[in-house]
Amino acid sequence: MGFSERDVISSLQKIFASSDPRIHLGIGDDAAVVSTSPLSLLSSDMAVEGVHFKSEWSSAFDIGRKITAANVADILAMGGHCDYLVAALSLTGTEELSWIENLARGMLHEATLAGASIVGGDLARASQVMIAMTAVGTTQHPITRSEAQVGDSIYLSSLPGWSAAGLELLTREISVNSAAADMALSQFSAPTLDYAIDFSTATAMIDLSDSLLVQAEQLATASSVALALNQSLFTQSDEFPELLNLAAEINGDVWQWILGGGEDHVLLATGKNLPGLHIGEVVSGSGIQGLEREIAPVSWSHFL
Amino acid sequence: MGFSERDVISSLQKIFASSDPRIHLGIGDDAAVVSTSPLSLLSSDMAVEGVHFKSEWSSAFDIGRKITAANVADILAMGGHCDYLVAALSLTGTEELSWIENLARGMLHEATLAGASIVGGDLARASQVMIAMTAVGTTQHPITRSEAQVGDSIYLSSLPGWSAAGLELLTREISVNSAAADMALSQFSAPTLDYAIDFSTATAMIDLSDSLLVQAEQLATASSVALALNQSLFTQSDEFPELLNLAAEINGDVWQWILGGGEDHVLLATGKNLPGLHIGEVVSGSGIQGLEREIAPVSWSHFL
Repeated sequence: MGFSERDVISSLQKIFASSDPRIHLGIGDDAAVVSTSPLSLLSSDMAVEGVHFKSEWSSAFDIGRKITAANVADILAMGGHCDYLVAALSLTGTEELSWIENLARGMLHEATLAGASIVGGDLARASQVMIAMTAVGTTQHPITRSEAQVGDSIYLSSLPGWSAAGLELLTREISVNSAAADMALSQFSAPTLDYAIDFSTATAMIDLSDSLLVQAEQLATASSVALALNQSLFTQSDEFPELLNLAAEINGDVWQWILGGGEDHVLLATGKNLPGLHIGEVVSGSGIQGLEREIAPVSWSHFL
Repeated sequence: MGFSERDVISSLQKIFASSDPRIHLGIGDDAAVVSTSPLSLLSSDMAVEGVHFKSEWSSAFDIGRKITAANVADILAMGGHCDYLVAALSLTGTEELSWIENLARGMLHEATLAGASIVGGDLARASQVMIAMTAVGTTQHPITRSEAQVGDSIYLSSLPGWSAAGLELLTREISVNSAAADMALSQFSAPTLDYAIDFSTATAMIDLSDSLLVQAEQLATASSVALALNQSLFTQSDEFPELLNLAAEINGDVWQWILGGGEDHVLLATGKNLPGLHIGEVVSGSGIQGLEREIAPVSWSHFL
């Protein structure tokens, strides 16, 4: 392709250059040297071409945003702030340099939204494009998924389901001319995280990367409680009518999207008087209660 | 294969369980929560089946050791100690659970040698097995590759070339019944890092992951100096005669192995009165000097 690994590294080094004074040494040595606080959060996420993203569906920029957002969301879900990211990237050798650079720019865009810098990485050749990122965050008070208390209410940082709606538009190859369809496609390609929500007093929190059902069940199990959801509360979201209209327009299932879809990276939190969308109560027992019908989560937990 | 992603995670969680009091929360939540010092080192390494390792050539245990060693070596090369590792792993779906578990045990084995714990990760399905690890280390005084001084001597933590010799045995399908051949094969499958060497007073340091020539050149460039190597000094290593004999036995090129091979993860350091193998002097100028003949590094820098 007329460029070497060194060209790629040199270009990425320029794109990721940061003037953050906490970064003593960025890309270019054996390791980055950064300032860290006494308590750090570490999380890793991997995205594979054809499994987590498709180049025909998403721009390199959006693919970069999406994997970065998925990584950052894990840190937000612990009540933390993401400070640093490192990225390992495999390339097939058929990519244009501009595609690789746009991927990096998408990563940088989302990292900047999060207040984080990309400080290192690795490149390899493989038969598939694959991106593995690790996020390093900080918090003074980590919020786990295991401290939900009976009597807490349950909140979402926003209405999930947009990404699943976007995926359905793409897989069914439906073209819809509406703001809701555009929103769904955009949220699928590169989810907008709820950076501004203040869940700092939550008792427990989890990132909805797989689906609300899968992750609510995980939080319930970890906390030894039951989550009593109330579907009518979801409908009070300002966004609900738009998502419902989109579902009606393409004969989709709005509850399948909301409860069974994933990848919006909405935060689910428990606690008292939290902001966001109130969707139910923490009660004694186990699992998820109050669903009006069975929903099969769109999950690939049986992939092996 | 009769097991789910959850089975794999549950098994890995048991294998990687640690009683290290610095780990406040390990695998199982959105992120790990760990104690960190004011200055942290971050580094990432990726290994791809067929490119960096082959399942026909190496056991899962050794593959796990090798990628972990590569990652740890980057931290050692900064004068640091590796504290935590996270691993992202792609699987094709044809692996046995026992293979995955042995991979994890190999990672744990090497992490334990380094004094590190594996605190998180991610799993994905892909067409190739791929392992991306991120190491988090600590140091009070990072040793970069850019502070070598004219007048310093140049040292290696041990003689490199064994891994390249092992690779040659495997690619040429030569079976040799000698301790040197066994050492070469072992070092290729899972390099033994020079944990005990004290390079803490080095002015500059770099990990020889690609090859001595490639990495010495990088250190020289970063430090704006020349490295004057003396090949006769290499021959004073206790290990040299064994490697030379192996080369003679299979008609290999011992200098190609030593100077052009990689993946032993030997450390190259500059400074005064350091331990290890003294191989030359830092002089003014640029690049590498003193080589008796041209060596083509075994590098894949033109992989795109």
